[in-house]
Amino acid sequence: MLNVAIVGGSGYTGFELLRILTQHPTAKVVEATSRQYKGKPVSEVFPSLKGYYDDLIFSEPEDFKRLSVDVVFSALPHGASQEVVPALLEADNRVIDLSADFRLHSLETYKTWYGEHKADFLLPEAVYGLPELHRAAIKDAHLVANPGCYPTSAILALSPLLRAGLADKESIIVDSKSGVSGAGRGANIDTSYVEVSSGFKAYKIGSHRHTPEIEQELTGVAGSDINITFTPHLIPVSRGILTTTYAKLTKSVSAKEVYELYRETYRSEPFVRVLPEGTFPNISNVRGSNYCDIGIFTDEKRKQVIAVSAIDNLVKGASGQAVQNMNIMFWLKEDMALSAPPLAI
Amino acid sequence: MLNVAIVGGSGYTGFELLRILTQHPTAKVVEATSRQYKGKPVSEVFPSLKGYYDDLIFSEPEDFKRLSVDVVFSALPHGASQEVVPALLEADNRVIDLSADFRLHSLETYKTWYGEHKADFLLPEAVYGLPELHRAAIKDAHLVANPGCYPTSAILALSPLLRAGLADKESIIVDSKSGVSGAGRGANIDTSYVEVSSGFKAYKIGSHRHTPEIEQELTGVAGSDINITFTPHLIPVSRGILTTTYAKLTKSVSAKEVYELYRETYRSEPFVRVLPEGTFPNISNVRGSNYCDIGIFTDEKRKQVIAVSAIDNLVKGASGQAVQNMNIMFWLKEDMALSAPPLAI
Amino acid sequence: MLNVAIVGGSGYTGFELLRILTQHPTAKVVEATSRQYKGKPVSEVFPSLKGYYDDLIFSEPEDFKRLSVDVVFSALPHGASQEVVPALLEADNRVIDLSADFRLHSLETYKTWYGEHKADFLLPEAVYGLPELHRAAIKDAHLVANPGCYPTSAILALSPLLRAGLADKESIIVDSKSGVSGAGRGANIDTSYVEVSSGFKAYKIGSHRHTPEIEQELTGVAGSDINITFTPHLIPVSRGILTTTYAKLTKSVSAKEVYELYRETYRSEPFVRVLPEGTFPNISNVRGSNYCDIGIFTDEKRKQVIAVSAIDNLVKGASGQAVQNMNIMFWLKEDMALSAPPLAI
Amino acid sequence: MLNVAIVGGSGYTGFELLRILTQHPTAKVVEATSRQYKGKPVSEVFPSLKGYYDDLIFSEPEDFKRLSVDVVFSALPHGASQEVVPALLEADNRVIDLSADFRLHSLETYKTWYGEHKADFLLPEAVYGLPELHRAAIKDAHLVANPGCYPTSAILALSPLLRAGLADKESIIVDSKSGVSGAGRGANIDTSYVEVSSGFKAYKIGSHRHTPEIEQELTGVAGSDINITFTPHLIPVSRGILTTTYAKLTKSVSAKEVYELYRETYRSEPFVRVLPEGTFPNISNVRGSNYCDIGIFTDEKRKQVIAVSAIDNLVKGASGQAVQNMNIMFWLKEDMALSAPPLAI
Repeated sequence: MLNVAIVGGSGYTGFELLRILTQHPTAKVVEATSRQYKGKPVSEVFPSLKGYYDDLIFSEPEDFKRLSVDVVFSALPHGASQEVVPALLEADNRVIDLSADFRLHSLETYKTWYGEHKADFLLPEAVYGLPELHRAAIKDAHLVANPGCYPTSAILALSPLLRAGLADKESIIVDSKSGVSGAGRGANIDTSYVEVSSGFKAYKIGSHRHTPEIEQELTGVAGSDINITFTPHLIPVSRGILTTTYAKLTKSVSAKEVYELYRETYRSEPFVRVLPEGTFPNISNVRGSNYCDIGIFTDEKRKQVIAVSAIDNLVKGASGQAVQNMNIMFWLKEDMALSAPPLAI
Repeated sequence: MLNVAIVGGSGYTGFELLRILTQHPTAKVVEATSRQYKGKPVSEVFPSLKGYYDDLIFSEPEDFKRLSVDVVFSALPHGASQEVVPALLEADNRVIDLSADFRLHSLETYKTWYGEHKADFLLPEAVYGLPELHRAAIKDAHLVANPGCYPTSAILALSPLLRAGLADKESIIVDSKSGVSGAGRGANIDTSYVEVSSGFKAYKIGSHRHTPEIEQELTGVAGSDINITFTPHLIPVSRGILTTTYAKLTKSVSAKEVYELYRETYRSEPFVRVLPEGTFPNISNVRGSNYCDIGIFTDEKRKQVIAVSAIDNLVKGASGQAVQNMNIMFWLKEDMALSAPPLAI
Repeated sequence: MLNVAIVGGSGYTGFELLRILTQHPTAKVVEATSRQYKGKPVSEVFPSLKGYYDDLIFSEPEDFKRLSVDVVFSALPHGASQEVVPALLEADNRVIDLSADFRLHSLETYKTWYGEHKADFLLPEAVYGLPELHRAAIKDAHLVANPGCYPTSAILALSPLLRAGLADKESIIVDSKSGVSGAGRGANIDTSYVEVSSGFKAYKIGSHRHTPEIEQELTGVAGSDINITFTPHLIPVSRGILTTTYAKLTKSVSAKEVYELYRETYRSEPFVRVLPEGTFPNISNVRGSNYCDIGIFTDEKRKQVIAVSAIDNLVKGASGQAVQNMNIMFWLKEDMALSAPPLAI
Repeated sequence: MLNVAIVGGSGYTGFELLRILTQHPTAKVVEATSRQYKGKPVSEVFPSLKGYYDDLIFSEPEDFKRLSVDVVFSALPHGASQEVVPALLEADNRVIDLSADFRLHSLETYKTWYGEHKADFLLPEAVYGLPELHRAAIKDAHLVANPGCYPTSAILALSPLLRAGLADKESIIVDSKSGVSGAGRGANIDTSYVEVSSGFKAYKIGSHRHTPEIEQELTGVAGSDINITFTPHLIPVSRGILTTTYAKLTKSVSAKEVYELYRETYRSEPFVRVLPEGTFPNISNVRGSNYCDIGIFTDEKRKQVIAVSAIDNLVKGASGQAVQNMNIMFWLKEDMALSAPPLAI
């Protein structure tokens, strides 16, 4: 039995870890921390979990070094995680960090987008936890940097084309649309029901912090520098990201060939579903699940590929992928706790 | 031309006053105050109003006595209004207060539900601004206490029956459902998109502060004490209240007679629409408008009437009714700025 | 291993059975019928299920007698089920029928509300499949009439009071609010997105067909005739029913006693969660799960109890309860395939 | 006073014409036709309009030639309009057609995308009714082809760049997101609440019929052939289109210059609001109004412009623009009936 701790357990990714791990046959949450809800039962903060964690009370450890379990999920916000992770590692825990703190390999890039780093000595050893790209390294990692939600959807949609050298590297466009839970759990007028409901908008055009993360991974796959245009939008739904990517083909390839490339790439992946030709994903069809659904359209005449991906931002885009990483790290069946189908409607 | 000021203009009722008054042929907003947005153009805080109030900047007067206009709408929160209204009246403004501060005639009842009152000397002169009940008094009022949203819907649904002495006074039930904007504009986890969307719940059962307001007005109509059971619920929509009321008949009356009673009661009211027999209101059909739609069902066998009413909580439930009151106070056509049909879809 | 067939598998309750049964360790869907989608793969009709039923193709048997499995779920519409169920029983299948066809014991009542019955000879042997009331009978039943969604929520909320003889039988009010999936899967202007979204309305006041079903079961519990006032409303959400029930107490009982009555009644029930005192259910907190959450408020002065219940109408209100019934019929652990927590957000 | 007839008045664009025209000081709807609702009062079909058109009953003329008014809005579906418009013109009505039937100048293009045309002789004289491009021609037109919703948003976002010769003509991408009312009013499983709510998807990638319409107008503006990549998506809201357009700059221009180009282009347009630099539109902020809000982002380094536009698809994208066209055709103030601000929340 794996003993699991969740640090920062009262946000949406923390909740989602708690929800998913109820279904895990060999892992057990033995501690969950929350500054805000310290001393409160988990099932009081999250009434939907009544009956699942009745003995678990949110704690707030003074000293994270004393946390000694098999694996710690850090679901703290960006910036806060780097203050805690070194202690957690020192105490010999394996750590899966859901923040952005350890995702970028380059300290310089980190500083440009986020500012100073308090634990940059860990950047070289952190493994970017996208199993479809880095499964082998994740197996042995002590610190997994769990990918961002937008990057997960964008990288899975674009990497087959880039690895095959088929995409023009100068003109990639990533037009993403995310549900509101991506903004985290907190009191904020911008994510209040009245402001969001019946609305739709683009935001942080040209300046969203997930840009360098997408570029880093696509660069790795392509073998040379990739810069993208990234436009995030806000959908009035709680869960889900749909990413529409546009890439110019570098040579004439048939629609069939492009489609087969994707099918082949993801043939053995348990959580990537390449949809039948001519069909495209809907965030409904992945809701609550760890799937990334991908649909491909190739305009042979314009030599352009439109690859569309859909994930649940809280599952494959955060906590589900984190559990997938845990399963890999402990040589478990990769879909443990993640095998239920989407809720869909 | 009426000069209008809005105190506390950056909440939803303030916004709604600004929106509605753009359509008023003889009233002009000359000042709008906001502590939070002091110095900011109205059209920056509310981009939907771009082009309408381009010269209007949110102010924050140190001294409300210096505000000298024809009418002031106070859209401040409960408790804050009573600190400002006396000064506004002293400076010879007529005041329409959208808070709960002056709605209850009884200081004792006020204290029970809200606590101490800082301007209780004004309670006797404040007129409860429900035109369908108090039109004559509103005409001459210096201080109008604009009704709450739930009370507007409940009182209009129940008062015909009670005035006619047809409803059993002991067993009235008011089961109300409100959109989220009723909670006001502010950062609050409980009204965040993710928490509210796809949810539905009852709240403040047996303890909502609108209870005494409904009881006061129904008591006035009935001529003797009325106590009600009031259960508010939260609907995942921005605007709208639907109130389902249940009353036992004190004697055998036909469904037809009950229906005609309602038709007759509201025959000349510009903003109450009694729907055709057998049809019932939908909040969509009043959205953005000052209408209260009412549908009546009488179960002759069980001797029970179910009267259902629908309003837009921000319009007939707040700012639209406030403008209606202004029109009455200044002998204007009652539907000025309020004549557009609902948005519906 | 139980072999399962689903007749009428392409509606929402059919989909939900398919979704839930993916998680069942000892049951397997071997056949699913659909007139509309005959010949199409299940995963094409329901893309969210891609990867789960890749070999299952919707069939349309000419002769239902040839269906020979351990249990058949009939998810056909009202009226259609009674044409098929006799043949299914003759072929020695045990049948769980999700329609209203076999829920009412009295043929007369059935005729009043639904019209002629083509298999009324089965009414006496059909067991009303609400485990909390009829678990023992379900065990041996060959034909289980799975309860309606509104009735499930109303009966669970009211039966403790009625069994204890505490509720006045003349004045019970059931004010229910349902998500849109309760109307079934089909092309209908009334349930189109634009008509429903941002709306809220009451419908079928005094005439909804679930009324006699609620009355039958409450009568059984109370030991004498119960008539109720039932008002259904439509919430703009896909899933969920919240039912607010009002009952007058027949004698003075403390709020504490009433609360303990509910706690005691449901102490051993795996799917009824009586919430902590002072807290009330939200349909979010049961979404996707088989739970019925109940909150109790007692107004000692007015001698009134407000019991509020929440279910997912497609799970505890339909397919989840059907699987619970199957588990009971085959002596399996009652929560098999139903143990995952709600999706909540 | 202008006499107005609406042919096909019971769909969403018909409803919207009825709603908007209640506010017109000099136009009056004297006839509205509907095959489906023939003989029914308008206010019964659209209860939100109760009190506005109480004497208007949906008719179904056998002979459209007998319709003799000042202007006819044809809100019939594509294909049906061309069967009626010739008769309407012959009877000396001026016609504003909201369908796609007369938008394309090239019969060949029409055939490619829609099939045979029954009144192609009218194509040369029909004026494409986008006032920002064709105001002068609209003034004298007898037949105005009212633009599609997606094209309105895309053309207004891109035409300033193309007219100025700043955009690369080979690589324009139009990523559009529309609310559900764009699909029209009708019973359709694909636009049912349950299927759409909480979902988001791309559809008709590379094959949407609005593509040639956008290309025709952009070609006109640019002076040479423009082909675009157009990807429509479905947002779970009733109203609103947000279009995110991507264009490569043909030469180095500063962000400031691009912004000023847009400001200058639309300086005198009553319904195009170029937002302050660094701010971007939200469909909420135009809801219910005839505005097109535009936000501009220029990435000087990548030499790329992202222009984002938002409209209400039923207003500026359909019926509001039709009324704007009527105002122009009859030399009225262009914003008559269209001057109210958006509903926003």
